[in-house]
Order: sequence, then C-alpha cells, then structure tokens
Amino acid sequence: MKSLEEKILREGIVLDGDVLKVGSFLNQQIDIDFLFKMGDEIARAFADEHITKVLTVEASGIAIAVAAAHYINVPVVFAKKSKTINVHGEVYSARVHSYTHCIDNNIIVPKDYLSPNDKVLIVDDFLANGKAFEGLIEIAKQAGSQIAGCAVAIEKGYQGGGDNLRAKGYKVHSLAIIDEMSAGGIKFRK
Amino acid sequence: MKSLEEKILREGIVLDGDVLKVGSFLNQQIDIDFLFKMGDEIARAFADEHITKVLTVEASGIAIAVAAAHYINVPVVFAKKSKTINVHGEVYSARVHSYTHCIDNNIIVPKDYLSPNDKVLIVDDFLANGKAFEGLIEIAKQAGSQIAGCAVAIEKGYQGGGDNLRAKGYKVHSLAIIDEMSAGGIKFRK
Repeated sequence: MKSLEEKILREGIVLDGDVLKVGSFLNQQIDIDFLFKMGDEIARAFADEHITKVLTVEASGIAIAVAAAHYINVPVVFAKKSKTINVHGEVYSARVHSYTHCIDNNIIVPKDYLSPNDKVLIVDDFLANGKAFEGLIEIAKQAGSQIAGCAVAIEKGYQGGGDNLRAKGYKVHSLAIIDEMSAGGIKFRK
Repeated sequence: MKSLEEKILREGIVLDGDVLKVGSFLNQQIDIDFLFKMGDEIARAFADEHITKVLTVEASGIAIAVAAAHYINVPVVFAKKSKTINVHGEVYSARVHSYTHCIDNNIIVPKDYLSPNDKVLIVDDFLANGKAFEGLIEIAKQAGSQIAGCAVAIEKGYQGGGDNLRAKGYKVHSLAIIDEMSAGGIKFRK
C-alpha cells in the first residue's frame, strides 16, 4: 500500500532498540480516515475467503481490526492479556512474549466467541517476530476454527516472523513490509 | 438508545460483584454493525460541537471511540495505561483506579497529540464511578484542550459517576443508563 509507505516515511520515527514509532497515525493517535482505508484494503485482500470473524489482541490491534471488520461485516473478537499464569473459566489461551512491554503474557479468548464453524482472519497493527500472530493462531486452532490468513498494517520483514508464517502455509497480507530500518532510513520490500 | 437497552436485556449477564458482562457484543466480541450504530448515535449527539479529537483509554474504549470518530471524521487519541518502549518524550498523565482490575493505573498521552487548539469528545464503553472519565478530563485540561463532553455506551447510573460529571457542568451522553441492576433484572433510566 503505497500511501502507507509514504506515511511511514513522512511521520514514522525510528527509535533506539529497533522500534518504529507510528504513534501519530496508527497507535496512540489514529488517523481515522487512513485507518478505514487500511481496513478496506485488508477486506479486499480476503474478499473471497468467507470470513466469519476478525481476531486480534488488545490493545493496539483493536482499531485496525474494527476497521477491517467494518468492511468484511463480521464481528471482532479480541484476546485479552492476562499476566497471571492461572487462567480459569472456559477460555482458549496461549503464551505470548510482548516485544514492546518485554514481558510474557497469557492471551485469552472465552470459548463462547470462537468455534469450529468460524473462519477467522487474524489482524494486528505490527508483525515483527510473529509471536502475537502465532499465539492467535494457536487460539484459533484450540477452537477448531479455520484460519483464512493474517493481515497486518506494518510487517518488519527483517525480523522474519511474516516469512515464517508464509513458510507454514498461511496467507499473510501486509500493507507495508520493511526490509531495512535504521536512523539513516527505511527500505520497503518490493 | 432503545436497541442498546434491548440488547443488554437479551445478551447481558449480571455477575457477582456488580459486574455487567456484555462481552458478547461490546467487549471481547464486538458486534460490528451495532458498534457503528452506537458510533453514529454519539456523533449525532455532538454534531454541533466542532470536535477535533476523540479521546479514550485502552483497551475496551478503543472500538467505540473508533466508531464514533469515523462519523465525526476526526482522529482518535487513546491514553495508555503504562509506559512502554514505543512511548517517548513528554506526556500528560493522570492516576486512575480501575474498577474491573482493582488496581491504580497511570494513564498517559504524549503531549504531541493534544493541544489548546483541540476540542475533545471523551468516549468509553462503560461509565460507573467515572474515574476513567475524570482521568481523561484531567489529561485534556493539562493539554489546555476544550472538552465538548463525554459519551458512553453504558452508564451505571446508580454508581453516580455520570451524575457527578453532569453536576460539574459536563455534557454526558449515555446510550443506556442502568439505574438498578441485580440477578433479578435490569432497570433503565427513563
């Protein structure tokens, strides 16, 4: 998505520790018009997949998941992060390492909200090492749901998570893939 | 909003500890069509206010804030509950007690995203004792922004937070106000 690449170049800030800050339009501040353009693009990429639910994880995945689900016209389900290891009640759960918070989270979804009748599209704002996507895939598998694929605004291609998912046979649709990033500049995958 | 009251009666579950569970449509699972109906209703209620930003707090406020902002056509800014590595620079902050998690959080917004030129609409999914709204009002005041008012899907009227805000002169628009709630039933404010 050329307009996203241009926006990253114009507004993104590369911080120490391999962090790309896009808080001005995709994180703590959300450019609402652009968010829905991205949601529309994601919906188009999976238009033939008969998706029944969009699955994401709190918090920063919720906005783009809502925008994509608006165009696909299906519910959003979001996994919650629970720092406690003991999760009780009827839930699906998976263990995920959070890159931005530097901690392990248990992510959980109540069993009521996913079933073998569902075909889910997994959506998030960032894909780096792919741990969040792997956790969400694990949850969808526990539910017996089909997985239509993964969609993300920004993939950090050089961290390998997206290509790992592709190698496992998942359709991964990234609106922008960064192959190199430093204070000197950002290079996108062709 | 009659359709929200009906949905609460049909799908809401009253749990011990004065908790109303609406996870089937407004929390961990989001009824996308209904979410945008609520967003549209909020936008209409504040149509004459010249709002420049919708302000909320992660995580469960994000979906309804995005839906409202879609119709108002302004950016969403959401406060984070802890400082992560992709937040840098100067921030506005306020201390908020979380009712559902029983802990105090520092909620923060980078100074870049709110200014004296902004007129903000504060949006959240629930309003109970009003602590989250008070924290967001404090942040908007620190930024010197004007406050157009507060909008919420479900107000627990009997907890007094909404009426406290009204007594302070804020316009509070709640799509449903619960005045009594027990295992026996739910009564809405007329």
